[in-house]
Amino acid sequence: MIKVGIIGATGYAGQELVRILLQHKKAEIVWYGSKTYIDKKYYEVYQNMFQLVDADCMADNMEELADKADVIFTATPQGLCASLINEEVLSKVRVVDLSADFRMKDINIYEEWYGIEHKSPDYIKEAVYGLCEINREKIKKARLVANPGCYPTCSTLAIYPLLKEGLLEPNSIIIDAKSGTSGAGRSPKVNNLYCEINENIKAYGVASHRHTPEIEEQLSYAAGENLYVNFTPHMVPMNRGILVTAYGNLKKQVTYEEVKAIYDKYYKKEYFIRVLDKGICPETRWVEGSNFVDINFCIDKRTNRIIMMGAMDNLVKGAAGQAVQNMNLLFGLKETEGLQAVPMFP
Amino acid sequence: MIKVGIIGATGYAGQELVRILLQHKKAEIVWYGSKTYIDKKYYEVYQNMFQLVDADCMADNMEELADKADVIFTATPQGLCASLINEEVLSKVRVVDLSADFRMKDINIYEEWYGIEHKSPDYIKEAVYGLCEINREKIKKARLVANPGCYPTCSTLAIYPLLKEGLLEPNSIIIDAKSGTSGAGRSPKVNNLYCEINENIKAYGVASHRHTPEIEEQLSYAAGENLYVNFTPHMVPMNRGILVTAYGNLKKQVTYEEVKAIYDKYYKKEYFIRVLDKGICPETRWVEGSNFVDINFCIDKRTNRIIMMGAMDNLVKGAAGQAVQNMNLLFGLKETEGLQAVPMFP
Amino acid sequence: MIKVGIIGATGYAGQELVRILLQHKKAEIVWYGSKTYIDKKYYEVYQNMFQLVDADCMADNMEELADKADVIFTATPQGLCASLINEEVLSKVRVVDLSADFRMKDINIYEEWYGIEHKSPDYIKEAVYGLCEINREKIKKARLVANPGCYPTCSTLAIYPLLKEGLLEPNSIIIDAKSGTSGAGRSPKVNNLYCEINENIKAYGVASHRHTPEIEEQLSYAAGENLYVNFTPHMVPMNRGILVTAYGNLKKQVTYEEVKAIYDKYYKKEYFIRVLDKGICPETRWVEGSNFVDINFCIDKRTNRIIMMGAMDNLVKGAAGQAVQNMNLLFGLKETEGLQAVPMFP
Amino acid sequence: MIKVGIIGATGYAGQELVRILLQHKKAEIVWYGSKTYIDKKYYEVYQNMFQLVDADCMADNMEELADKADVIFTATPQGLCASLINEEVLSKVRVVDLSADFRMKDINIYEEWYGIEHKSPDYIKEAVYGLCEINREKIKKARLVANPGCYPTCSTLAIYPLLKEGLLEPNSIIIDAKSGTSGAGRSPKVNNLYCEINENIKAYGVASHRHTPEIEEQLSYAAGENLYVNFTPHMVPMNRGILVTAYGNLKKQVTYEEVKAIYDKYYKKEYFIRVLDKGICPETRWVEGSNFVDINFCIDKRTNRIIMMGAMDNLVKGAAGQAVQNMNLLFGLKETEGLQAVPMFP
Repeated sequence: MIKVGIIGATGYAGQELVRILLQHKKAEIVWYGSKTYIDKKYYEVYQNMFQLVDADCMADNMEELADKADVIFTATPQGLCASLINEEVLSKVRVVDLSADFRMKDINIYEEWYGIEHKSPDYIKEAVYGLCEINREKIKKARLVANPGCYPTCSTLAIYPLLKEGLLEPNSIIIDAKSGTSGAGRSPKVNNLYCEINENIKAYGVASHRHTPEIEEQLSYAAGENLYVNFTPHMVPMNRGILVTAYGNLKKQVTYEEVKAIYDKYYKKEYFIRVLDKGICPETRWVEGSNFVDINFCIDKRTNRIIMMGAMDNLVKGAAGQAVQNMNLLFGLKETEGLQAVPMFP
Repeated sequence: MIKVGIIGATGYAGQELVRILLQHKKAEIVWYGSKTYIDKKYYEVYQNMFQLVDADCMADNMEELADKADVIFTATPQGLCASLINEEVLSKVRVVDLSADFRMKDINIYEEWYGIEHKSPDYIKEAVYGLCEINREKIKKARLVANPGCYPTCSTLAIYPLLKEGLLEPNSIIIDAKSGTSGAGRSPKVNNLYCEINENIKAYGVASHRHTPEIEEQLSYAAGENLYVNFTPHMVPMNRGILVTAYGNLKKQVTYEEVKAIYDKYYKKEYFIRVLDKGICPETRWVEGSNFVDINFCIDKRTNRIIMMGAMDNLVKGAAGQAVQNMNLLFGLKETEGLQAVPMFP
Repeated sequence: MIKVGIIGATGYAGQELVRILLQHKKAEIVWYGSKTYIDKKYYEVYQNMFQLVDADCMADNMEELADKADVIFTATPQGLCASLINEEVLSKVRVVDLSADFRMKDINIYEEWYGIEHKSPDYIKEAVYGLCEINREKIKKARLVANPGCYPTCSTLAIYPLLKEGLLEPNSIIIDAKSGTSGAGRSPKVNNLYCEINENIKAYGVASHRHTPEIEEQLSYAAGENLYVNFTPHMVPMNRGILVTAYGNLKKQVTYEEVKAIYDKYYKKEYFIRVLDKGICPETRWVEGSNFVDINFCIDKRTNRIIMMGAMDNLVKGAAGQAVQNMNLLFGLKETEGLQAVPMFP
Repeated sequence: MIKVGIIGATGYAGQELVRILLQHKKAEIVWYGSKTYIDKKYYEVYQNMFQLVDADCMADNMEELADKADVIFTATPQGLCASLINEEVLSKVRVVDLSADFRMKDINIYEEWYGIEHKSPDYIKEAVYGLCEINREKIKKARLVANPGCYPTCSTLAIYPLLKEGLLEPNSIIIDAKSGTSGAGRSPKVNNLYCEINENIKAYGVASHRHTPEIEEQLSYAAGENLYVNFTPHMVPMNRGILVTAYGNLKKQVTYEEVKAIYDKYYKKEYFIRVLDKGICPETRWVEGSNFVDINFCIDKRTNRIIMMGAMDNLVKGAAGQAVQNMNLLFGLKETEGLQAVPMFP
């Protein structure tokens, strides 16, 4: 059994890690870290865990945890993981960081967009960006995995093959994304109250959201050149789900079959990526609770653009699910272990 | 592997059966019955099943099915199961009926409340009411199981122990229940459109809902005498979940500890029934997607009444989950097999 | 023009007062009080008011306000109004208090249920309970009006006529109420976050909610004797609306027509109370945004009980709308002035 | 009093017309047309109208109506208005058509995108496109007004000034729009059931939605040349509201102040268009129930694009409200008459 420690187990992503890992046959949770609820029963924070988890919430002690666990998940605010990591920790335990600390290779971009100083710049180079379908082989050998952001996961997976194959004008890409509210976390803020989110849709972080450089870095790798995108996230009155609608200018005329063949080339063997039948748009309801990303596209001959769409559960493939997928890779397990839940509808 | 046929696989309860059974290690679905979508791919009706189910929807042919399957689930409108069942079918295959056809022992009550003629009165006596925690031993030996209604499951489990132990005045019971909208099914009706349900709460079927006699029959067994209840269901703008708030007059003064001891006597060993800690009210969000029923109570000394509360997922313990629990009992499997999903939140 | 000051204008009830009063032909707001947002533009707190309100938020200065305004609304936490009121204030200005400070005549009950000391016990007797349809004449002559709570308004109006006419056993009444989330206010708490409320229903304050003694006092007046009720509120995932489902034992057999005649006797001339056609259940969607209370009932001959139902908008008739109705009475205006908005659906 | 007839009064847009007109001081409804509910009380279809509307639903008889009314609103499926209109009708009564029949000047485009034959091509040229802020003077003199579609209203108003002033590359425009579910109408379809819409977001009509050519025609007028756009609508789980997020390539570098000055030039005097303060994104909740369109923009220097955003209530400014605004213009009334409702929040 792989011993798992979770730092930040009482946020939504942390709780989703618990939910998934409780159903994982090869892993057991040995540490429920929580800054806010120390010494409280974990199930008192999340009553769904009543009679399923008896443990108390523990302090965020990475030193002690490194001795007890085989892998540590940090589902914490930006900056915390970078402030806790060191050679001793990494020599004892694998770390999957769900924050943004190690996602970008350029420290200046990190510090500019996140507005904080990076406390462990030495490990930026070593860290592997944990987008499993793209970086699978590198992840297997990593000590430190930077679990991708929710929007970047969905955006990159939807666009990557077409950029890689040179179909898109690199600087033409516009990503209009929509997310459920669990992505905003569990801290009490007026803006996230029920009455403020319900019966409303809004854009936020327009031209300034922190996931922008993360997406740009990954898409630049695909394009083989530096590119910029427009990325606009929106808040949708629902709990879970991310939908990405991305637009790109086609470099040349292409047929449906040609584009489909490209997606199939990259994803046909991928269990978690489902390229849908022709004409079927991805919808978040069809992936809820699962690690699937549903993808499809539509060519608009009138404008010579292609619309690329992706849908996934922001808490699963966009956070905890992908983190467990990374754990499976790190420890040589079946990649789908613990992650084959059928999407729950309605 | 137990071969399962589903008649009515494209309703919400039918689809939930599919979702649960796909994750059940000892069962496989051999028949996806659907009156409406014959010859269509099942995943075209429910895109969450894309790449998980390749089968087509089939006609509701119980004869053929009886030869192919070990157990048949009928998740169909009232009257259909009773019209299909016969000695030949029951000699070949076990039947778990999710409709109301075999729930009540008094055919007159069935015909009065449901307004239809019963087509198989001969099997009413034989059928076992599949409330697993109460009728476990009888279910194991049954050929025909009447899977309980959603409201009756939650109401009966919340009230049963106190009635059985003689704490409540039998005719004082008032059940005020609230359900998510999936309980109304998937047929297109103006009343179930998004804009009609959203931002609204209403009572319906006041003093006339069909689940009333079903609840009364079960509670009468507990009380050892015929009783009547007030039962008022409400429609809540959410997908899943039933909450029951029941009121009863206490026959004598009791303490919290005395009542808790009674619930523990009946439910402490039950995996799927969680009697919550003192002061914690059941909430539907904590059981979503699971087969749990969360129960608690509150004594009101001022009025000498007790408030009994229960929460469960109407599609799981209230329909498909309990049906699979019954199947597990019928075939001597572990009762929790395929049913240990951790509740999904948020 | 009546000059209106609002203390607590940035809560949900306060904002609703602003919304209603902006459309009131005989009133103008001269003071937008807010402890939290002093010196901020009011429209920056509520962007719906952009270009409609230019004023800044002001401190809660009742002395100064008493000089500037003809009427003060206090839409503030319990205890504040009682701590600000005095003879000088009341000699200059009328006060409509939306908190619970002056709703109950027995100070001991107030201090017991609210857990705070009452700072102005001298004015409890003078204060008039502002349930307009019941206390209209007294309100007209009042200096200090205690605006009723949301649950008590809906509960009392639904039950009052039948108790008054002696149809109900006084101590048999059970009130199961359901409210939208705006009733919980705008302070940031984990429990009121979108993801915690959405897709969930729960009871809260079981046998202990503060509105219980308020309801009991009003119903006791109707019954002509002291009575106790069971009152259970529930939180529903919607913004606005309260639905009350109340149960009472009938003292004698009655017909639909007899009961209807009683409701008509009390409410036929009331603009804001709509007794629905036979068989139509009140629903919150049909009163949203309006000052209406929709009422109906159902006799259950099997149990000899009557189910009384009421639906209203908790922010309008349950708070700001009734407060303006009280203001209209205080100043001799048409009682419906500013309150004739047609319910908004969907 | 202006006598108003409504054909299609029992759809969502028709009901919204009723709601608005009941609060309009210069208009009275003389005809509640409804194909589905003939001879039923109007309030039985929409219980919010109980005691407010006593009329029965009437057949769609335009001849008779032309004699009784001063203006007819047709809130009906595409093709109906075109099939009913003729010289006699137009000589007696003004017509505001809420369908798409007279919105586009090119009959071929209409017939291609809507897939139906146009029955009154002679009146296409005469009809005035009723986007009040753009075509105000023409509307005043019209007999037949084509009330704009919901998406086109919001999209055009957000983009128009910048195109007109030559800031945008005409063929670079991408419109990503999100709508509440009332836009899908009240016919019972599986896809619009509560459980199908709730907890979901999806794109639909990708590269093929019928509002595309309507938007293109209006934006082409602004640009002074024919242009094509990408338009992608999405379905959001909420009742009301449209949010448009539009992207355009800037022809040259511009400052915030320069762009703001352009919007102010066009909209500063417009009551119903609110250009928000710098940095404030439009949100649908702030316009709910009102005729406002909230607009703002954000320049992205990194990509040299501008993001233009608009939010409005699809049933008010996107349908019934704009129709009444057109009526006000047609009859020389104050343009805001009956339309000054303060947005309702929450």
